[in-house]
Amino acid sequence: MAIESECIVCRMRQALDVCNFVDADENTKQSILKRVMEILIDGIENDTPDGVGFLIQTELKRLTNHNDPYKKVKSESIQKALELYPKLVQMVENSGHKLKTAVELCIAGNVIDFGPSNKHDIELAVQQVVEKEKSYFDFDEFSKELHKARTVLVLGDNAGETVFDRLLMEQVDKKYYYSVKGEAVLNDAIYEDAVSSGIDQVAEIIDNGSPMSGTALPRCSTEFKDIFYSADMVISKGQANFETLADEKRRIFFLFKVKCMLLCRKHGLPLNEFVLLDNREIHKN
Amino acid sequence: MAIESECIVCRMRQALDVCNFVDADENTKQSILKRVMEILIDGIENDTPDGVGFLIQTELKRLTNHNDPYKKVKSESIQKALELYPKLVQMVENSGHKLKTAVELCIAGNVIDFGPSNKHDIELAVQQVVEKEKSYFDFDEFSKELHKARTVLVLGDNAGETVFDRLLMEQVDKKYYYSVKGEAVLNDAIYEDAVSSGIDQVAEIIDNGSPMSGTALPRCSTEFKDIFYSADMVISKGQANFETLADEKRRIFFLFKVKCMLLCRKHGLPLNEFVLLDNREIHKN
Repeated sequence: MAIESECIVCRMRQALDVCNFVDADENTKQSILKRVMEILIDGIENDTPDGVGFLIQTELKRLTNHNDPYKKVKSESIQKALELYPKLVQMVENSGHKLKTAVELCIAGNVIDFGPSNKHDIELAVQQVVEKEKSYFDFDEFSKELHKARTVLVLGDNAGETVFDRLLMEQVDKKYYYSVKGEAVLNDAIYEDAVSSGIDQVAEIIDNGSPMSGTALPRCSTEFKDIFYSADMVISKGQANFETLADEKRRIFFLFKVKCMLLCRKHGLPLNEFVLLDNREIHKN
Repeated sequence: MAIESECIVCRMRQALDVCNFVDADENTKQSILKRVMEILIDGIENDTPDGVGFLIQTELKRLTNHNDPYKKVKSESIQKALELYPKLVQMVENSGHKLKTAVELCIAGNVIDFGPSNKHDIELAVQQVVEKEKSYFDFDEFSKELHKARTVLVLGDNAGETVFDRLLMEQVDKKYYYSVKGEAVLNDAIYEDAVSSGIDQVAEIIDNGSPMSGTALPRCSTEFKDIFYSADMVISKGQANFETLADEKRRIFFLFKVKCMLLCRKHGLPLNEFVLLDNREIHKN
């Protein structure tokens, strides 16, 4: 299967977003979109879906002459999340089930994502995630594993969502590792984004050594993989980490919002669902 | 200026919409998107914006083997609008200013549009249009002209919106002509859509002779142009009619919701605004 049709249109919208984020002029925008279409056509003709997204992101950086085109939106997302943070802490404090509420909020944080769409409403997600009936929510196993674990690796996703991850880590005292991308890609958190979110106060921030979205293990550094396989528990945030690790054998807890139809079809998950998936449960089926 | 960057991305999304409307399989979708990208690249390279949209719509019909790919969504839109119709009549009846309310609702109907987006909320628009402060609303001139006119040409836009246009025409008894497209294009109303909406009960339905979106006069039939120039009043619905007729000298009242940034920049109109524009006022500035 070549790059899927929905992803093609999504990549185009992402490219236009990047142009807008860096205030490119109309001529530059057109040249960039032309280049992206050439890559996509080549991806269709030569059946090379995996490399397409990465190649486009690389070309977007080169053509806009920005090595982190989402820098400004990432910084705004972190700022907004930090403003929300005291309210989130209060929600956890007031909850009859603190850890569960922190997990729910941590999943809500995953809506801060400029990948599948350039619109999101984090306040709405915070409200929805607590109220909504959740059909894919392996919380008991998650809680048991977390309390048992000494070392926990959290696979970070988007900048801003990082603040929600910090809130979760603050609930149970552990030796936490928090992974960020090796290079800027979409609005995924890199080292400095994690620090601005206060992650360094609760975790050791490690970069996964990969410039790609998600956690593509063959592209990750040996140091990262050592921690990935030796940590007592792995908590994975977001769709891209889920997609790249869905077939992984080691136990992983995936926390994310289901944001695109592709994922729905491929994994039988309902669109817009907030999920906590224990991959032991997935592999059972 | 070649086809604008926002339109490029919009055309891609429209193409995927069409694929989904006709239940194309994934391979067909990819071939279609590839063809659309080739047309868009050619449009960028050769600076031919005007023909691009039409060529894409023509190719979409050919490649999906459907001469009216929006048929089903158009029919659903009309059905939904007809279900709303008694409530709309009631809103007009209960209003202290019946014609003004009918005009407002007629503008709200313009949100039923699969061109700029594939999502719209007509109930929300009905509520918003009445409550919202409107800064571009030349109602007094409109009302004066309508009461003075013997013959009125309404330039139709989308299927479903047609029902809202009918509601407006029912308010003041005139000789109405109602124009539809000569061939299916996007979700624009063609003859049968106007009839299903009950337009034939209040107006003489005429097809403009053109297979293109909007009212591109050079492509319209002589019969249509005769009516266009001889009618006492022309009421134009939607963005595409506005874009194609923005420089026209004859007096036209444009009713639409501002749905894309391009229009905002080009004509200084605020996004999401519901407008009633008298082009005499525009030309004054």
